[in-house]
Amino acid sequence: MRPTGKLHLGNYMGALANWVALQSHYDCYFFIADLHALTTDYADTSKIRENIEEVALDWLGAGLDPEKCILFLQSRVPQHDQLFLRFSMITPISWLERVPTYKEQQDNLSTKDLSTFGFLGYPLLQAADILLYQPQFVPVGQDQVVHVELTREIARRFNQFYKLDGREVLPEPQVLLTPAPKLPGTDGRKMSKSYGNTIQLTDSEPEVRQKLKTMVTDPARIRRSDAGDPDKCPVGDLHKVFSSPDTIAAVNQGCRSAGIGCIECKGWAADALVRILQPIQQRRAGYSAAQAIEIIEAGSLRARQRAAETMLQVDAAMQMLA
Amino acid sequence: MRPTGKLHLGNYMGALANWVALQSHYDCYFFIADLHALTTDYADTSKIRENIEEVALDWLGAGLDPEKCILFLQSRVPQHDQLFLRFSMITPISWLERVPTYKEQQDNLSTKDLSTFGFLGYPLLQAADILLYQPQFVPVGQDQVVHVELTREIARRFNQFYKLDGREVLPEPQVLLTPAPKLPGTDGRKMSKSYGNTIQLTDSEPEVRQKLKTMVTDPARIRRSDAGDPDKCPVGDLHKVFSSPDTIAAVNQGCRSAGIGCIECKGWAADALVRILQPIQQRRAGYSAAQAIEIIEAGSLRARQRAAETMLQVDAAMQMLA
Repeated sequence: MRPTGKLHLGNYMGALANWVALQSHYDCYFFIADLHALTTDYADTSKIRENIEEVALDWLGAGLDPEKCILFLQSRVPQHDQLFLRFSMITPISWLERVPTYKEQQDNLSTKDLSTFGFLGYPLLQAADILLYQPQFVPVGQDQVVHVELTREIARRFNQFYKLDGREVLPEPQVLLTPAPKLPGTDGRKMSKSYGNTIQLTDSEPEVRQKLKTMVTDPARIRRSDAGDPDKCPVGDLHKVFSSPDTIAAVNQGCRSAGIGCIECKGWAADALVRILQPIQQRRAGYSAAQAIEIIEAGSLRARQRAAETMLQVDAAMQMLA
Repeated sequence: MRPTGKLHLGNYMGALANWVALQSHYDCYFFIADLHALTTDYADTSKIRENIEEVALDWLGAGLDPEKCILFLQSRVPQHDQLFLRFSMITPISWLERVPTYKEQQDNLSTKDLSTFGFLGYPLLQAADILLYQPQFVPVGQDQVVHVELTREIARRFNQFYKLDGREVLPEPQVLLTPAPKLPGTDGRKMSKSYGNTIQLTDSEPEVRQKLKTMVTDPARIRRSDAGDPDKCPVGDLHKVFSSPDTIAAVNQGCRSAGIGCIECKGWAADALVRILQPIQQRRAGYSAAQAIEIIEAGSLRARQRAAETMLQVDAAMQMLA
C-alpha cells in the first residue's frame, strides 16, 4: 500500500479488512510502498514520512497484528532494489509499455510529470516486491489482477533463463482474489482520496455524521414525500456494505414507500460506520507514531532476512556468486 | 570495466595504464561492472564468473594496487541498485532515449535483443556507479564524456529536488580526460574483442610474435623492395605507442627507404610489446584466481561502507529516513 496519508473506508474494505482476515491463515507480508510513492511524488517528498506513520497507525488500528504478520517498509529492504535491477535487465520495454494502466495513469494524473523511467518501470518494482518473498498467493482485488499477471510473466522469463541446480527459484504466484465491494464516497463517485470524498478511518463520530448529512442520495427523490430507490442511492450502497440485514430491509421498505426521509436513513448509515470505525480508532489510539514506526522497523528487519534468502538464490541462479 | 574476459592492450592503454598512474594521486574506486554485463549478456551468464576472475587478475597484473586504490565488484555493493532505483524515479525517459550510444549500440549488437528496460536505463546505472562515491573526477576517454555529462545532469536534477540541511549531497563530478591512444588490432581496425584482433595482456612472447607476423601493414608496400609509409601502417601505429624514439626513427627511415622489410619492423614492434607485457604477466602470475577474488571482495566491503554513507545522505535528503 502506498503511503498516501490517512486511510479511508475504501482502503479498509478493499484491502485492510481482507488482510486482517488472511493474517491468521497465511504467512503474510504487508508493506508500505514508499519507493512506489516516488513514482508520482518524487518532486515533493516532504509528506512521505508523515504519511508512512499514518498508514502504519491505520494498519494497526484496522487489526493487523505484528505477532501474526510481517509489516514492513519497502525502502528498508534494499533487496527490492536489487531484484528490480535484475528484472530490468531481462524485461523487454514493450512488456511495460503495454501495461494497460501505464497510459491510463499518465492521462489521469496529467498534472504530474509521469514520463519518468521509474514510472514506466513500476510494474517491475511490483514484480520484485512480490517475487522477493517467493509467495504462493498475492491477495489482490480484481483491478490488480493484470499486474500479478505481468509478475507471473517476469517469473517465467527469469526461470527460463536462470535455474539453481535445475530448480526454478521464483515460483509463479497465484492470485488470491479478495472482495472489494463498491464503496461510494460522499459525492456518489467511488471513494477515493483524489476525489476528496472519503470517510477516513480516523474520522470522529461527529465528522462521520456531518459527512453523511451532506452525502449525495437518489437524485430522483427530491421531496421528503417522494419515494426513493436505495439501489440508485450512494447511501443505499453504504447500507448494503455496512448495515445489518434488518436495517437494510428497513431502508428498502422505508425509502421506497417514502416512509422514512433521507436524514433518518443517513443516520442509520452513520450508526453502521461508527460501529465499524470505533474499534479501529480505539486500537489505533493504543499506539504512538513512534511505536508504530518501531513495529514497522522490526518487521522490516524480518522482511530483510527473508528477502536476503531469495536474493542469494537469485544471484546464485544468475551465476553472479562465487 | 565490464567483465568481458581477458583484457587486451587496448584496454590497457585506454584505461588501465591511466588508472595505475592515478592511484597514487587520488582516492580511486575501480569496479568490475558485472551488473552492466547483464545488459548485453543476460541470456547467458555462464561466463561472468570466469570473466570477473580474468579481469581481476589482469588488473593486478597491470599494477593496480589494493593498498593504493579500491578494487571492487559492482554487484557486491547493493547501494548501486538503490541509487539506480532512486534515479529512475526522477529521470525523464527522453533523457535516456536521446543518449547517442543507445540506438547506436542496439544497431551494432543486432544479434542480441537489447530492447530491454535495463539497457535503456544503463546510463542511469552508470550515474549511480559514479555519484555513489561523491567523486570530484571521473577518469574517462573522450568517447565516454557524453555519459559523464548525463551523470552531471542527473546530479543537478537530484540536487534541485532534494537537499540535506540546504546542502547538495551529490556534487557534479568533473571529467578527468585520460589519454586513449589509437591502438590498431592485428587486422588494422581498432583493437577490440568483438573484432577478434586483439593482443591480450596474457599473450606469451611466441603468441605476440606470431600475431605480429600476420598483422596487416601498409597495403601500398607490396614487395620487399617497395618503400613504405609508417603513417599508413598499423604496425607503424603500434611503434608510435610502444617503441622508443630511437626505434621509431629507425622504423621511419628504414620503411620509407625500403631499408628494412616488414618482418624486421614487426620484430621490433613485438620486442616493444613483450617489454610492456612481461612485467604485467609476472605480476599477474603472483596471484591465484582465488586471491584476486579475495582482494575484490575486500575492496567491495570498503566500497560498501563508502556507498552506505552516501545512501544515508541520499535517503535523508529525499526525506525517506526517520
